Amino acid sequence: MTSFAIGVDLGGTNLRVAAVDTRGVILEKITTGTEVARPRDQVLDEMCVAISGLAAKFGKSKHLAGIGVGIPGIIDMHSGMLHESPNLPGWQDYPVRSELERRLGTKVILENDANSACMGEKWLGAGSESDHLCMLTLGTGVGGGLVLDGKIWHGMTGMAGELGHTTVDPQGPQCGCGNRGCLEQYASATAIKRMAMEAIEIGEAPQLAYAMNRNPEFSAKMVYELAEQGDEPAQQIFRKAGQALGVVLASLVNTFNMRVYVIGGGVSSAWKAFAPTMLEEVQKRSFVYVATNAADLSVANQGNHAPAKTRSSGWPTLITQAQLGSDAGLIGAARLPMLANGVHLPEQEVKTIVK
Amino acid sequence: MTSFAIGVDLGGTNLRVAAVDTRGVILEKITTGTEVARPRDQVLDEMCVAISGLAAKFGKSKHLAGIGVGIPGIIDMHSGMLHESPNLPGWQDYPVRSELERRLGTKVILENDANSACMGEKWLGAGSESDHLCMLTLGTGVGGGLVLDGKIWHGMTGMAGELGHTTVDPQGPQCGCGNRGCLEQYASATAIKRMAMEAIEIGEAPQLAYAMNRNPEFSAKMVYELAEQGDEPAQQIFRKAGQALGVVLASLVNTFNMRVYVIGGGVSSAWKAFAPTMLEEVQKRSFVYVATNAADLSVANQGNHAPAKTRSSGWPTLITQAQLGSDAGLIGAARLPMLANGVHLPEQEVKTIVK
Repeated sequence: MTSFAIGVDLGGTNLRVAAVDTRGVILEKITTGTEVARPRDQVLDEMCVAISGLAAKFGKSKHLAGIGVGIPGIIDMHSGMLHESPNLPGWQDYPVRSELERRLGTKVILENDANSACMGEKWLGAGSESDHLCMLTLGTGVGGGLVLDGKIWHGMTGMAGELGHTTVDPQGPQCGCGNRGCLEQYASATAIKRMAMEAIEIGEAPQLAYAMNRNPEFSAKMVYELAEQGDEPAQQIFRKAGQALGVVLASLVNTFNMRVYVIGGGVSSAWKAFAPTMLEEVQKRSFVYVATNAADLSVANQGNHAPAKTRSSGWPTLITQAQLGSDAGLIGAARLPMLANGVHLPEQEVKTIVK
Repeated sequence: MTSFAIGVDLGGTNLRVAAVDTRGVILEKITTGTEVARPRDQVLDEMCVAISGLAAKFGKSKHLAGIGVGIPGIIDMHSGMLHESPNLPGWQDYPVRSELERRLGTKVILENDANSACMGEKWLGAGSESDHLCMLTLGTGVGGGLVLDGKIWHGMTGMAGELGHTTVDPQGPQCGCGNRGCLEQYASATAIKRMAMEAIEIGEAPQLAYAMNRNPEFSAKMVYELAEQGDEPAQQIFRKAGQALGVVLASLVNTFNMRVYVIGGGVSSAWKAFAPTMLEEVQKRSFVYVATNAADLSVANQGNHAPAKTRSSGWPTLITQAQLGSDAGLIGAARLPMLANGVHLPEQEVKTIVK
């Protein structure tokens, strides 16, 4: 009997629940809207109904390996409590894991959403050829995930991988986390929008001002559309985001010396607008990147780099865009119970199927 | 028959070689000066003579578990080549490991000196109660080491853990590594001296100027002595170092969520002068530190902190001074072959002996 698992990805705007088989194929996906203002218990109800429905449906012919749930925020892995979650008001200090287990009558693996996405990309996306992966997810906030030796690095209480709160500029904008100048203040959708508003405010961005006035739902996406159309102030904003990403990635490369660093989340679709500056910055700032990439200046941006004058190790560092799109978190969440319960295909077989 | 290993710590000013038993007791230590200008082959000769001597002497009654050699600089772990080492001119791109193995006729484990020190502190020092340790060594430069799950984290080519080249301020002083504003530019002995010279230059540090004029060998140590005597400009320099350390440690705590972070190296003896500012900065900047330390504001600096208004997880994050002093690297280097060859006492026994 083959196995499947259920993965859940609870975002600020969507709740998604899927049945995923051991090859990573999504058998069925249920998507519902979760407005931020929606009551917690209603969201949990819907989640449990969707989980139970998929479990019953696919459980007839397959073995259910388990349930993995990715949620935004800081989770205490010992208690299964959600410590803080700016995007889920009313969930703070709520015992999410035990509440889900009580409702479903079975064990649930609770995980931070960026960690889940990192696991998804590690399994079937940008990190599938490596044992380790470092991921930044650029969404409403900036999340981070670390997979080391095939496992999510949780740290002692599950709060590790908060890479969005790495300091870019100690004197930079105040961050909700208490710090100043966090990566999140430069590279999140919220930050892109804030920087656009600042440019409009000082009268330096007529196109952005026009777009904002025309549309009350002015967003980072619109800033990107203008950047794509060649608007210099909009492009400047993405270069600033790229610069901040480059500063942080340079330090991450010097810290981990991993093979692959992946950028996901909604804002990562603006790759073309921020990646050239980001990679330039890493090249300038990380001697480990330079030493590993001397002869092989990889991915997406070769034109901008003159080959550095150092010796390559033959193991280039890759900084690349996520491959699974918005499904990364869902697929990664489903992968967690498979790993925990030893239900997975041999690597060889998985890779053959995926390609 | 009990076992022992030989550890080597090659610094910019000293070469030290020791026979270390499986409890971490140094059986014999040989120290010779290695002036920076000294020819490479002469240093290697001396190292091999000392190693062979200790191997012969203790090999009569004990089993030699192996040889571990810690050297400053970037080592490619695949080839055993020393890529770069600012403190060892003439060693660049030299195949240190194979040369040592050729001379000694036996296998040698080559390791970065900060990694060795981190392993030493993990074994018998500040990290002995944890499986993981993050170490910063404040010396001529700033080194870094990561022990994860009991093993040194090398990354794909052995260049991981270069935490001294984490960016503190993207616009800061130019660093030898190519980056600007690296931690090394604020918290190394070289940086302390540079900041003192800068303060003297602008006429704001009469005591420092007097000390420098009186002594041509003006050093970071003298700046510390003045700071201890209450000289404000000297104290200001250490506060600046503490601030930079705090910025980097905050990001490290948010990244790793480890139990213990340890500061070693010569400059760490100025702990009293920089630690209060450092810990204050971490408290301000890392919400993971705040969340873990709410009720228990640990080590050395409780007076300066009002308890934060968050929930403690019961697992306080410790940022603390190294315990093994200048022997950390030597002991850690000796530990490496013991681990590689499975020669070690059960943890329980080790701890009983050490305490």
